[in-house]
Amino acid sequence: MLPDKVTIVDVGARDGLQNEPGVVPTEVKIELIQRLADAGLPVVEATAFVSPKWVPQMADHDAVLRGIRRKPGVRYPVLTPNLKGFEAAVAAGAEEVAVCGAASESFSRKNINCSIAESLERFAPVVEAAKARGIRVRGYVSCVLGCPYEGEIAPDAVARVADALYRMGCYQISLGDTIGTGTPLKARRMVDAVAERVPLAHLAAHFHDTYGQALANLYAVLEQGIRTIDSSVAGLGGCPYAKGASGNVATEDVVYMLNGMGVETGVDLDALIATGHWICDILGREPASKVSKARRG
Amino acid sequence: MLPDKVTIVDVGARDGLQNEPGVVPTEVKIELIQRLADAGLPVVEATAFVSPKWVPQMADHDAVLRGIRRKPGVRYPVLTPNLKGFEAAVAAGAEEVAVCGAASESFSRKNINCSIAESLERFAPVVEAAKARGIRVRGYVSCVLGCPYEGEIAPDAVARVADALYRMGCYQISLGDTIGTGTPLKARRMVDAVAERVPLAHLAAHFHDTYGQALANLYAVLEQGIRTIDSSVAGLGGCPYAKGASGNVATEDVVYMLNGMGVETGVDLDALIATGHWICDILGREPASKVSKARRG
Repeated sequence: MLPDKVTIVDVGARDGLQNEPGVVPTEVKIELIQRLADAGLPVVEATAFVSPKWVPQMADHDAVLRGIRRKPGVRYPVLTPNLKGFEAAVAAGAEEVAVCGAASESFSRKNINCSIAESLERFAPVVEAAKARGIRVRGYVSCVLGCPYEGEIAPDAVARVADALYRMGCYQISLGDTIGTGTPLKARRMVDAVAERVPLAHLAAHFHDTYGQALANLYAVLEQGIRTIDSSVAGLGGCPYAKGASGNVATEDVVYMLNGMGVETGVDLDALIATGHWICDILGREPASKVSKARRG
Repeated sequence: MLPDKVTIVDVGARDGLQNEPGVVPTEVKIELIQRLADAGLPVVEATAFVSPKWVPQMADHDAVLRGIRRKPGVRYPVLTPNLKGFEAAVAAGAEEVAVCGAASESFSRKNINCSIAESLERFAPVVEAAKARGIRVRGYVSCVLGCPYEGEIAPDAVARVADALYRMGCYQISLGDTIGTGTPLKARRMVDAVAERVPLAHLAAHFHDTYGQALANLYAVLEQGIRTIDSSVAGLGGCPYAKGASGNVATEDVVYMLNGMGVETGVDLDALIATGHWICDILGREPASKVSKARRG
């Protein structure tokens, strides 16, 4: 049974731009976030409060978060991997934050330089501090349908990390198919395993389209009861593990599918397509959205 | 419930190449067909016995069909829109043919210059002649999920044409989302309507990926009981209704999804990807397959 309504979280301004080689001007980031909110996106991930040493593209997190004109009702979560980042985010006006763990030990070690258990220990004080201030925390889990180093990931490994983040106090767990190798039945089995521990209403699907499977996987988990989808305008982000390949599924393509099924998102597809073309013109590339290409054709 | 096995019909050498602006040499077409059969495709659409005045690219149909080294067990259907084409196809050794109707009156008139009813009258003697010789006939129905001229197409309109072709004697009805505007629930409703008249085992899904929806739609109809999928190596074909956009869903992406779900196709994905790169190198473009892009990355 499909839902009447789905909440889309656009991650283009953070997860998308993060992999851009050239630094994107702060005012472009601010305009992108505002355009997405104006197009009807209810949640727009804004930036990451991480060290500029690790992610130079997000060095202007303070200016971005302070600079956006906030639209009432829209949420602007920011990534805060540790307490230092969290405090800086709150000082800049963050009302929602996110932490990012992995379902794969190897990926955790290579990506954030610590074990899964150590990462959870690092997130605990962030979530505690957030709860104390009434700030909501999203918990990302990466590699839920495969890992670039380990290959297959057991659904139970995903469920354990998702459960730990949920019990810690994350209000929503976003399940990331980081390398896009998932297919519909694998996605269903993974969600089944996670849903035994975390209520479906508190899960989000964050699927990459590297192998073209994202919409099929999303349709499969929508049938299961997933109600929140992460995606990226114009498919911004690419895939750091396969040069020239797609990363985040394009928000345009997700909205087109949901529109076609009569599922409400609140998003104005034409405004979204225009925003995708606008940011891609600035970045000097074509939108990685088939809907955009078909509409312009 | 998903099937254990799906039959893939690769339409790249006919439906795919048909829209190529530059004429592809006969020996390249022959090698493409042979490579696809060698990669494990059980059905490889070979060419079209149409007037070179209408489709110059298929003017070498005779040489192509006579030239291919046939692999035992593999079928090589050819398009035969009328009795003249049928007789020529049989003379060249055709053992399976196809006719192509539309679910949209406007599309039928613009594409084959006659009404749906007139097109069926034209196909009847072809199907009769084929039956008399023990030759199988596939029946295509185009515009099953939308028409470039009429927009939405009623599922019942599709069911009526599919039923007429089936009762005429077509052993399989291939349901074509010619402009790729379908989404999963529309695809399901259309298949539900058709399956009331034609048994599911005699239906095939021929979906285009113009709006990125093809795999999601295929997954939805596989759940319903569809067991045959048409696709095109490297997504050959493009979309004549949206320049630069995708047409046929890429066989590589379909096989990847089916492999991931444990559905057997008999296709060697690596050999298929290599074939896609080989033909695209000759045509001077990149394969329109995300799996190809991710694997090469």
